[in-house]
Amino acid sequence: MSGFVSFVSAGPGDPELLTLKAAARLRAADVVLYDDLASGAILDYARAGANLVAVGKRVGRPSAKQEHLNRLLIDCAAANARVVRLKSGDAGIFGRLEEEIEALRAARIDYEIIPGVTSAYVAAARASIPLTRRRTSRRVQFVTGADVTGRLPANLNWAALADPESTTAVYMGKRTFPALAAKLIEHGMAPDTPALFAESLGRAEERIVRTTIAQLAEQLAQATAATTAAVILFGALAGETL
Amino acid sequence: MSGFVSFVSAGPGDPELLTLKAAARLRAADVVLYDDLASGAILDYARAGANLVAVGKRVGRPSAKQEHLNRLLIDCAAANARVVRLKSGDAGIFGRLEEEIEALRAARIDYEIIPGVTSAYVAAARASIPLTRRRTSRRVQFVTGADVTGRLPANLNWAALADPESTTAVYMGKRTFPALAAKLIEHGMAPDTPALFAESLGRAEERIVRTTIAQLAEQLAQATAATTAAVILFGALAGETL
Repeated sequence: MSGFVSFVSAGPGDPELLTLKAAARLRAADVVLYDDLASGAILDYARAGANLVAVGKRVGRPSAKQEHLNRLLIDCAAANARVVRLKSGDAGIFGRLEEEIEALRAARIDYEIIPGVTSAYVAAARASIPLTRRRTSRRVQFVTGADVTGRLPANLNWAALADPESTTAVYMGKRTFPALAAKLIEHGMAPDTPALFAESLGRAEERIVRTTIAQLAEQLAQATAATTAAVILFGALAGETL
Repeated sequence: MSGFVSFVSAGPGDPELLTLKAAARLRAADVVLYDDLASGAILDYARAGANLVAVGKRVGRPSAKQEHLNRLLIDCAAANARVVRLKSGDAGIFGRLEEEIEALRAARIDYEIIPGVTSAYVAAARASIPLTRRRTSRRVQFVTGADVTGRLPANLNWAALADPESTTAVYMGKRTFPALAAKLIEHGMAPDTPALFAESLGRAEERIVRTTIAQLAEQLAQATAATTAAVILFGALAGETL
C-alpha cells in the first residue's frame, strides 16, 4: 500500500498556533479525519477538494468507537490517499495515538507524527503566568482528569500531584476536578493553592478564571455541561501574573 | 512608549515546527533577539532588513548577563521597534521568561507570549514513542536538570520523578544526568527503566538513542562536551515503539 497517514497536532484551537508543517500537511491532504475539538477555522487550511470527515471525540459525549476509527484510517490510506489524522492539542498526549498507530502498523501503512502546541502552554501564555521559576518551581506536570469512562482515574500519583512547587495542568478534568481537588487536599495540598481555569482557548468565547483549587472545585461541582475543552493549571505559579 | 515585544517560542530547532503566528511575528520584526539554540534556518523567516542579535544562552557556556539582556530588550522597544525575543522550545518553560517580562513591565512596555512546541513532544514523535497510555501512564512531567550554576538542582521532588508510570522529560540535563539517575535509583526506580536520549532534534546531526537510565548515566558520565541541546525521556513508555 502506498497511502500515508500524518498524525497532525492541531494545537488548542487557534489556527495561528498550527505549526508550518501541520498547515503544509493539511494543504496536501486528500482526506482529513478530525476530532470535533480540532475543527473550525483550522480546517480552512485543507484544500478545497479534500474530504473532511468528523470522527467524534467530543468532550462530554461518547466517542465514535475507536475500532471504527482505526478501520477508517486504514481504508483511507489503502485507497492511496494522503491522510491527515488531525488531533487536538499535541497528538502524543492523552489522545490514544498509540491505538491508531498500532492499527496502521498491523496493516503495514506508513505514518508520521507531527508534534504541536499543548493547551497548558497556551493557557499559561494567555494568562501571562510563568510555568517554571528558577530555584523554586522546576517541575511541570500534565495529567488526565478522565479515564475512558469519564471518571477520575483511580491510580494517579496523588503525592506527585499535590506538590505545590510543581505547576500542574489537568486535561479533560472539568467534570472530575471536584474529586481531584478532594484528593489533593487529602494529600496535604492547601485548599487555597492557586488555580487557573482556561476554557475555549483561542476562540471568541475564551474564558480564563483565576481562583484556588477549593473554590474551583466548588464552582465546577455546580456546573452542568462539560462540552467545552478546558485546561486547569494549579500550583504556586498559577496565581502569579507576569 | 509604543514599542512592542513578542516573546516567540522557536520550538526545538526545526523551522517547520514554528507556529504560523511565530513565523508571522518574525516576518514583521524590526529586531530579533535570539538565543543561540533558536538560530539557524529559523532566522530565515525574519525579513531582510531586520536587525538580528544573538544574545547568548548557549548550552554549556556562561550566558550573557540577564540584566544586560533585559536592558537590551527595553532599549529596542523604546526605539519604537517591533521586537521579537526568540526563545528555543516553548518560551514559558525553563527559560527565565519571567525575569525578562518583569523588566518590561517595570519599563511599561507591552508584550505578548506566543507558545510553541516543546522538545519532549518532538523527541517522542521522532522516536515514535507514546507519551501517555490509558490505564497505566497518565502523567507526563518536565524537569530541568540544571540550576543557574549548571548543577543538578538540590530540591527536586525525587519521589515524583522516580515514578516509572510517569513519562518524564529532562531539559538541560545532559551534564547532570549521572547525578539525577543516582537519585532516581536511590528513590526506588529500577536501573533498567527505559530511557531515550535525543540530541539536536530536527537538525542534520539529530541523534536518538534508546537505552536505560543506568546505561545512559554511565555513557553521559564519560561524555566530554555538553554543547548540544538534548532532551532525555525516561519511564515505562520511553522503551516502547509505536
